[in-house]
Formats: sequence, C-alpha cells, structure tokens
Amino acid sequence: MTTRVTVWNENRHENKNPVVRDIYPEGIHGAIANALKGAGYDTKTATLDEPEHGLTDEVLNETDVLIWWGHLAHHEVADEVVEKVKKRVLEGMGLIVLHSGHFSKIFKSLMGTSCDLKWREADDKERLWVVDPSHPIVKGVGEYIELEKEEMYGEHFDIPAPDQLVFISWFEGGEVFRSGCTYQRGNGKIFYFRPGHETYPTYHNEQIQRVISNAVEWAAPVGRKYPQYGNAKPLEAIKDK
Amino acid sequence: MTTRVTVWNENRHENKNPVVRDIYPEGIHGAIANALKGAGYDTKTATLDEPEHGLTDEVLNETDVLIWWGHLAHHEVADEVVEKVKKRVLEGMGLIVLHSGHFSKIFKSLMGTSCDLKWREADDKERLWVVDPSHPIVKGVGEYIELEKEEMYGEHFDIPAPDQLVFISWFEGGEVFRSGCTYQRGNGKIFYFRPGHETYPTYHNEQIQRVISNAVEWAAPVGRKYPQYGNAKPLEAIKDK
Amino acid sequence: MTTRVTVWNENRHENKNPVVRDIYPEGIHGAIANALKGAGYDTKTATLDEPEHGLTDEVLNETDVLIWWGHLAHHEVADEVVEKVKKRVLEGMGLIVLHSGHFSKIFKSLMGTSCDLKWREADDKERLWVVDPSHPIVKGVGEYIELEKEEMYGEHFDIPAPDQLVFISWFEGGEVFRSGCTYQRGNGKIFYFRPGHETYPTYHNEQIQRVISNAVEWAAPVGRKYPQYGNAKPLEAIKDK
Amino acid sequence: MTTRVTVWNENRHENKNPVVRDIYPEGIHGAIANALKGAGYDTKTATLDEPEHGLTDEVLNETDVLIWWGHLAHHEVADEVVEKVKKRVLEGMGLIVLHSGHFSKIFKSLMGTSCDLKWREADDKERLWVVDPSHPIVKGVGEYIELEKEEMYGEHFDIPAPDQLVFISWFEGGEVFRSGCTYQRGNGKIFYFRPGHETYPTYHNEQIQRVISNAVEWAAPVGRKYPQYGNAKPLEAIKDK
Repeated sequence: MTTRVTVWNENRHENKNPVVRDIYPEGIHGAIANALKGAGYDTKTATLDEPEHGLTDEVLNETDVLIWWGHLAHHEVADEVVEKVKKRVLEGMGLIVLHSGHFSKIFKSLMGTSCDLKWREADDKERLWVVDPSHPIVKGVGEYIELEKEEMYGEHFDIPAPDQLVFISWFEGGEVFRSGCTYQRGNGKIFYFRPGHETYPTYHNEQIQRVISNAVEWAAPVGRKYPQYGNAKPLEAIKDK
Repeated sequence: MTTRVTVWNENRHENKNPVVRDIYPEGIHGAIANALKGAGYDTKTATLDEPEHGLTDEVLNETDVLIWWGHLAHHEVADEVVEKVKKRVLEGMGLIVLHSGHFSKIFKSLMGTSCDLKWREADDKERLWVVDPSHPIVKGVGEYIELEKEEMYGEHFDIPAPDQLVFISWFEGGEVFRSGCTYQRGNGKIFYFRPGHETYPTYHNEQIQRVISNAVEWAAPVGRKYPQYGNAKPLEAIKDK
Repeated sequence: MTTRVTVWNENRHENKNPVVRDIYPEGIHGAIANALKGAGYDTKTATLDEPEHGLTDEVLNETDVLIWWGHLAHHEVADEVVEKVKKRVLEGMGLIVLHSGHFSKIFKSLMGTSCDLKWREADDKERLWVVDPSHPIVKGVGEYIELEKEEMYGEHFDIPAPDQLVFISWFEGGEVFRSGCTYQRGNGKIFYFRPGHETYPTYHNEQIQRVISNAVEWAAPVGRKYPQYGNAKPLEAIKDK
Repeated sequence: MTTRVTVWNENRHENKNPVVRDIYPEGIHGAIANALKGAGYDTKTATLDEPEHGLTDEVLNETDVLIWWGHLAHHEVADEVVEKVKKRVLEGMGLIVLHSGHFSKIFKSLMGTSCDLKWREADDKERLWVVDPSHPIVKGVGEYIELEKEEMYGEHFDIPAPDQLVFISWFEGGEVFRSGCTYQRGNGKIFYFRPGHETYPTYHNEQIQRVISNAVEWAAPVGRKYPQYGNAKPLEAIKDK
C-alpha cells in the first residue's frame, strides 16, 4: 500500500513576506508535497489556519507519516491537537520535523528537553556531512549536501542523544550541528532534519527532497498491533512463598 | 564537596496501609535516606504533603541529585513543581526515578512517551541481571540481584531506548523488563530503577541500596555553566554572496 | 531489484547427528533458504566444505544479505574468507548472525569483544519479548515469540551495547538474554538473532522465519558509493597563520 | 586508591623530527604524563622500543587506564601485546586512544571497523564543540575548545556509532568530525579523542589536558569480578516436556 503523507505547515511567513512567497508560491507545504507526489507518495497538506489546523481525527487516522514545519506560531497550535498527534506517533505514525519545528510543541513534548540551540540569519554556507552511510535515509545522497546560504543552527542543541545520528552540519561562521537525527518513541519513528529556513530555496534542492522522501519511507509505520499494557496474568506458574 | 541528595516520596501508602508502615516505619523516603546517609551523602527528604511538596526553590537549588518515589498521587503533584524540577534536571541536577515513579509527571515529561507497562502483584520472584558490567552503577554488585518477592513489571515498557541499559529483570511469571536505564537530558543525568513495591522490603536490601548509592554518585552534576542559546555572532568571517 | 540472499551454514551437525538430520533433512541452510524463497527473496546457500566455503568473490559480490550459522567448526573457517566477508559488510552487505554464530570469527571481528555468554542444553522454554515495537524487524510478530524448548543463552553476553535492542529473551531456568540486536558497521547493517539450536525445530517456526525475513529486508544495502577516505583537499580557503 | 595511568607512545616522530622534539622535548608521552601527574594520577610511561613495548604483564596488571598514541609504526606493535591489551580492556582497564591512534591495531580490533577517515595537514583551525554537556569528560571545559592549527580529520569516520558522542569538531577547510567518542567493551571503557598531531603543541593546551584528565577519571575500572561465562546450571527448576 502506498505510504500516505500529510505535510503540515504553519503557512504564515508565506502570507506576510513577499520574499518567502516568491520562493514558495504554493507555500513550503506545497513545495514539499509536490516533491513527495513526484516520488510516488499519496500526499496531502494541512495548515494552521484550517479548522483543527487541518489535523482532524480522520486526517490523522489516514496519515502514515506527518511532516511538520512551524516557526512563528508554535504557541497557536492547540494543545489538544498536539496530544492527538503525539498519541498517533506513539501508535506508530511516522513524524518528520523540519528546521524551526525544533521548537514546536509536538517535538518538545516527544523529546522531553528544551530543544534550544544557537541561531543566526547571516547567509552562512551549510554543508551537511553524512556520518551514517548505512542508513536508508541517505540513499542516493553524496558524501555531503552543500547549501550556499542557510540560517545557522549551532550546538549545543538541547535534545536527547539521537538513537541514530545521520547528518552533522558544518557552518561557515564556525559552528557545527547534529542536523539529521532519528528517534524511536513508542511504536513510532521520528526524524529531525535541520535545513529549511523560509527565506532560502532549500526545499527546492533535489538532495534535500531526496532525504525527506527517504525519511518518509523509513518512518512509515510497521503496522503492528499496539502492545497491551496494564494488569497481566502470569504466563508461568508462580510458587507460593 | 559532598553530593547533596533529596529523597522525595509521596508518602501515602505508609499512612494508609499498616503492612507498608511495618516495613517502612520511617517511610520509604526514610529508609532510602538512611542508607544514603550511611554511604556518606548529605541527605534530606521531602514529601508530597509538605508546602510546595517540600521542593521549594531553596531545596531544589541545594539538591545535586533528586530521588523520586510516587504511585497513588502522581496527579496531585503540582505542574509548576514539575516544571521547576525539570528545569533543574536540564540545568544539571541528577534524577533517580524509582519503581512506580515511571508514571510520575516528571518522568513522563522527560521521556516524551506514555511510560506504560504490564504489571502484576503476585509475589513474583525477580532477578535483575547486570548487562553492562563496565557501568559505575553496578560497582560492588554481583552478576544479578535476586528479590524473593516483588511486583512484576513487564515489557513492552514504553520508554525511549535507554542511552545505557544496565539491568534486565527476569520474572517468575514469564516476563522480562528493562529495569535499570540511564538517560541524558540537557546537562542532567537520569536513572530509572525498577524495584521497590511498597509492600515488600526491597529498599532494605543491601544490593538495592548499593545500586541507588552508586547511581547518586553517577548522576551528580558535572558543574558546567549552562550553554548559551539564542542568537549567536559568527566566530569566523562569512563571505558576501 | 529483488534482494539476493546467501544462507551460509557450517553443515556439520546435520552430517553427524541423526536427530539434527531428521529435523533439518535439507540442512539448517536448506530450511532457512526455503523460508526466504517463500518470502520472495533470490536465495542461495553455501556451506563450509565447499571450495572457499562456497563464498567465492563472485558469490559475495552477488550477495546483498549474508546469513551465518556455525558452531563446531568456527576455527575451520579460513581467515582470508573472514576478511573478505568483513570487507563486504563494511562496503554495505547485510549480515544476519544466528545463534551459535555469536562465536564465529566474522562476528567476533565485527564486534571487537569476546562475544562470550552463559549456556545450557536443558530444554528450557524461551520467550522472546519485543522491546522495540517500532522496528521493521518485528513486523507481523506478536508481543513475544514462545519456543517450547531451546538451548539457554544467558547474560552477561559480552557484546558492544547494540545500536538497537529488539528482543529480550526470558528463559525458564532463570536467565535473560539480549536476543535480537542490531549494529551498524561501515556501510553495512548487522542483526544478531539468538534462537536456533540444531536439535530443536526452531527454524521451522513461522514467527522465527518472519523475523529472519524482516531482517533481510532491513539489512539490505543502501547502495551508496563507498565513502572516500585518505588525503582530502580543503573545500574552503584556509588562512595563512 | 589513586588511579594508575600508563601513557604509551610510539615515540618515533620525536626521534626523527626536530620540530616535534622542540615541541615535545620529553616526548608526547612525557607531556601527557606530566599533565596527569599534575592532576594527581599515579602515572607511568611506556614506549614502542622498550622490551615488550614497555607493556609487560606486570605493567598492564598495574594499569587502570592506558593512554595510546601511535602513528608511523602501528604495524610494529606485536600482535601478542595487542591481544594482552585487549584482554585487559575487556576485563576492565580503561583505554584512551588519541589522534592517529585511530589506526592502531588495538583500536581497530576493539571497534571492528576500518577506522578510516579523511585527513589533511594544512594548518586548519579546529574547534571542538561540546555536544553532551552532562558528560563528566567535559567538566571544566567551555562550550568549545579552539586550536589555532591542527591536522584535519574529516567524516566519514568509519567507526561504530559511539555509545556517547561528546565532541564534534569544526574544521576551517569545511569538514566536521566526531572527535570525542565513548565506547563500552566488556568490563572496560574506551574514549577516542581526536586532537594531537605531533607538529602542533596540542597536548600543552590546558583544555585538552583537562579532557584527557577527565577521561582518565571516567574510564577507571569499576572493579567488579569478571562475569562467569560458559555452561551454567539452572537457577529455577525446568519442567520435563
């Protein structure tokens, strides 16, 4: 069965800033969704200002992998929607958190840390080095991906140690960053991927699109029944003591 | 400087159940605190029904490692206290979560998962096997610790994969459990340790006391300055593009 | 392209012991290969007593995932074949090491440890609990797999901490074991899977077959170019100092 | 008891190259040993050209933590000495591998990979960023350590994913590197630390000395009895089937 992807975007910069609108006339969500459709995924989009932020029970239940881009309006995302997304992740839905999504409620809630970092908007060159060449997320990607200009994110990045560290970024201004990180949470798989500041055409880059597409494949649910929790009868006899 | 420990206990079973009071006449917190004093730590206790649950700013600021036992009344712990404890952990305070503390607000918030599990009160024998003999937490501990009777906790335990898995429990009724788990969160170190149901004399067991004492040593703060987050000037010149 | 599997077996017990031959008339390699063919993989077998142990350059170059079962004759495997297999793993070939293969030259060489363990042949019941429900290796598998009789392997198992711990075994005689472990080495992925003593019909168990089949899928090479090592020209100008 | 350290150095560059001799008149081993003596450790040195490379059974048995620096003459280290060092590490001796020691027999044997990397001698500036502020190895260290000139080591570094990643290096020429990595092997703890090319005064840098000193403390043996391996009697009755 084709993996079903929902690309969620806060979609505010696009409406405020002509620079962003010029780069992403269909929104960041539109650009990513188009790339994923091209890769063969069954892809929808959802945005903050739709009812329930476009993430109704129906949409979530029919989503195998959710992609998340937010920045200005993290605080406007309703807590109950965050709780529903989290429940779906623990049940197996894949989650790909992009760039400034590091500060989204859903990412912070799944990580348990502040998710804080250093940042700078100064046209730094970024070079993302592959540090795990065995990982399916880097299929078809060279030794590094170079982005002529990006926002800088620098360490210390306050996240739990990733289960798998896939990319490390080099920045022109002298910093490094763990920029491709996987996590397992419950039955679900999470990938954090750093690049994608709204004023740069990062999501039009084919290597970046390839990573996101690979991550969708990797994060797709295994499809097992949810484990049984709570009171459990013994499977073996217990002696009287 | 001597490591300063605060042993926090909800202290409700002790007041309700004579069986528990007989085993722990000074409360679970008292038993653990006595063992830690004996090991040379500067040890205090705090309980749920004290003002601010005994965890005032002053107490938290003077605590290097906090030990947490709770069960019946997780929901009575004030969210603002949980937030203050979490902030202190991210700043470097060690945290040792015991047994039913797996469902405490503070542990769930730091883990990002449901922390659910299977359980049974049926006098199972438990045998905790050491799976990382290089870890300082198992100093002075044999190949396994055997507890004649304990509550069973069984997999799947819905936690993030531990940074280091130190103990795995065998239960008489047929289950296994990841019963000694370390996590790094921010500047702080966390140890989850499974045993300690209130109706058994587990915290009087010298091997269990030894593990908790070792964990205090291991979890003590490194004492570095908190990293700087936010906007950062470049350390190297960035070219005009 | 269909994943190409080679099932390697030392094939000695089958020739010496009628009990084993009765359970595996086509050899352990034959039983596993039949299951994998049934799952749609392009599957070959190779055994110790063939020239070059059946692992010629041609065979290795056309193998995406190698499965390894050995026990009595680890020392008879030629060092140069071990080196060739290791090189292929680092280049990306998947490797699935089964049961007593824990003591094979190839596994010990890739792990860097003694790979020693406790063992007992006493018809223990084994129950393999899934501890990572998000992992593709447990697709279609229940909360646990129960084997009525198996050889016991017990902790401490002297391996590096697995990158991902997928199964933990419970044994009737009181032990536990990390029985499903993944490792990344170079461009290659490795899965160690415990069950499969030669005198029990373990590889005829459908759940065990399912795990091996899932592991083949998971371990298949990503297919990237091997990274470039050695002297490297700078990608950015370096200032005179 | 004071931790006993042996600093092992191949000590060849010092004898061939006046530049190196000027920087390290007592050898690299002498510089490191002096720093560790200053930090209060019971410190000895040993070098390649001594009988048994200075690593007799007596020396190894009285060493809690071994520090290793080699480059030109890895192949001259006798295999039997490597085997003895490895056995001691698995039994609990700490091991700190420095810089070009990444290609030593002992490190490759404990890692199981090629340990290959990119390199360049071009006076790159190196900046080592702390990515795990909770780790005792970074006690007293700032957010980063800056080295005005160093040899570059770049990714991909062909090592197993570290158990804990402590430092990531930024290089002026555009590369990154996992430059502080911990591993657990058997009862022993290993720390790989990148800096220290022989033509730069890196080991005179106080922050670098501090990291090595912290690593000694961290890697010191836990002092448990070696686990029992091999045939094991059941701890619980096994039913007839």
